[in-house]
Amino acid sequence: MTRSRIVTAAVVVIGNEILSGRTKDSNLGYLAEQLNALGVRLREARVVADVSEEIVRAVNEMRSRYDYVFTTGGIGPTHDDITSDSVAKAFGAKLVKNPEAVAILERMYEPGQLNEARLRMAHTPEGASLIQNPVSGAPGFQIENVFVLAGVPAIMRAMFDGLKHRLAGGPPVLSRTVAAFIGEGTIAKELGALQDRFPDLEIGSYPFFRQGRFGTSLVLRGTEAAMIDRAAAELGRILHGHGVEPLDTEPA
Amino acid sequence: MTRSRIVTAAVVVIGNEILSGRTKDSNLGYLAEQLNALGVRLREARVVADVSEEIVRAVNEMRSRYDYVFTTGGIGPTHDDITSDSVAKAFGAKLVKNPEAVAILERMYEPGQLNEARLRMAHTPEGASLIQNPVSGAPGFQIENVFVLAGVPAIMRAMFDGLKHRLAGGPPVLSRTVAAFIGEGTIAKELGALQDRFPDLEIGSYPFFRQGRFGTSLVLRGTEAAMIDRAAAELGRILHGHGVEPLDTEPA
Repeated sequence: MTRSRIVTAAVVVIGNEILSGRTKDSNLGYLAEQLNALGVRLREARVVADVSEEIVRAVNEMRSRYDYVFTTGGIGPTHDDITSDSVAKAFGAKLVKNPEAVAILERMYEPGQLNEARLRMAHTPEGASLIQNPVSGAPGFQIENVFVLAGVPAIMRAMFDGLKHRLAGGPPVLSRTVAAFIGEGTIAKELGALQDRFPDLEIGSYPFFRQGRFGTSLVLRGTEAAMIDRAAAELGRILHGHGVEPLDTEPA
Repeated sequence: MTRSRIVTAAVVVIGNEILSGRTKDSNLGYLAEQLNALGVRLREARVVADVSEEIVRAVNEMRSRYDYVFTTGGIGPTHDDITSDSVAKAFGAKLVKNPEAVAILERMYEPGQLNEARLRMAHTPEGASLIQNPVSGAPGFQIENVFVLAGVPAIMRAMFDGLKHRLAGGPPVLSRTVAAFIGEGTIAKELGALQDRFPDLEIGSYPFFRQGRFGTSLVLRGTEAAMIDRAAAELGRILHGHGVEPLDTEPA
């Protein structure tokens, strides 16, 4: 994988608790930020229920379409934790008791506490490699380009920290925000023309409301700093043309 | 649609800013809660980029699979706002200037401010009905079972409030949480057996950490209060069997 190739990823959030509104997902935003910093472009995310066929379908569609797939949730010891089994099915692989994972759980639990349910957490698809869990022990796993992580945010984050080095990122995506008290509609036409002149940049326009006034944050994203500089300078000229100064700080 | 039929929905979150981690989505959690309260089961959600083919694919897959589809984002006046056009494509419908929407925008802008870019916000697929935007004017729209909403949370919420009456919900989903300081793995087997005895309930198990101790929240969801009562009583007996009392308040 060369440094100039664009590297892509997708996230599959697994869990009825997200779809019922009981739990607000924060894993997607975290993974989006982290992957972006590594030069991996998150292209798509899905939230699916604790239903095996749904998980299998999402994982299979996404692992063929993107370089990396990250799943979160559903790897605990209870009946609603069906991610490992479903990922094995997606790969047509056998779900096996992973001896390394068993050893981790044996160190983690008092004698007599490592029951059959907890041993389920030591099962991975055949051929998977473990992802360490420094928070609560029970590991995640990687099989080919799919990384299976916990749903509890603190655990998911620690797992991701530990697996980062396995990812081959592309060129980091640089971002510059230019914000001003101007309506997006006022500069929309010039902004579209700017996007046409800089097809290798991604130019996003996001309205905001601050100090009782509406404004727009314009976000320039790309891999070449000089190109972003040039586009930002042109953006400054567009704003000046409307008698508006860019703000010094980005609105929250 | 009878009251006993299960009514389903999906959400499509549209926007590069979510996938880059720049913006943390809060619309999904809001829609999940609101739909749940209306007796509509949110079955799946997707986050897709500002890429027409991606939006078309997501909308078409989901509108055939679920009763309702809600999209958020991408209905502003700038070049990266391609939701309306993409939804029209998904339906094979013409994108037309909606006279009612034009009238709304004409009331909203000072003379001379309603330029070509802003008039883009008055375009909907042919045959669509408008969804009012009491916050900033520019409307969303409904075409068949697809509801196209703004991405700015305050606007999205106001739009949803205004369209709720169009939704035919199923029986409301009732939920009861029983929490205790006990490891999920300790009661996993009994919990699985309880789920088997109550196939019409959805029993979820979620670990938590409070006052320096690990515990588990057990969530019983279903449409029959009496059934939830019976399952909760059995759950109480399971916990007592392990010498544990349910907590009075649900952990945050």
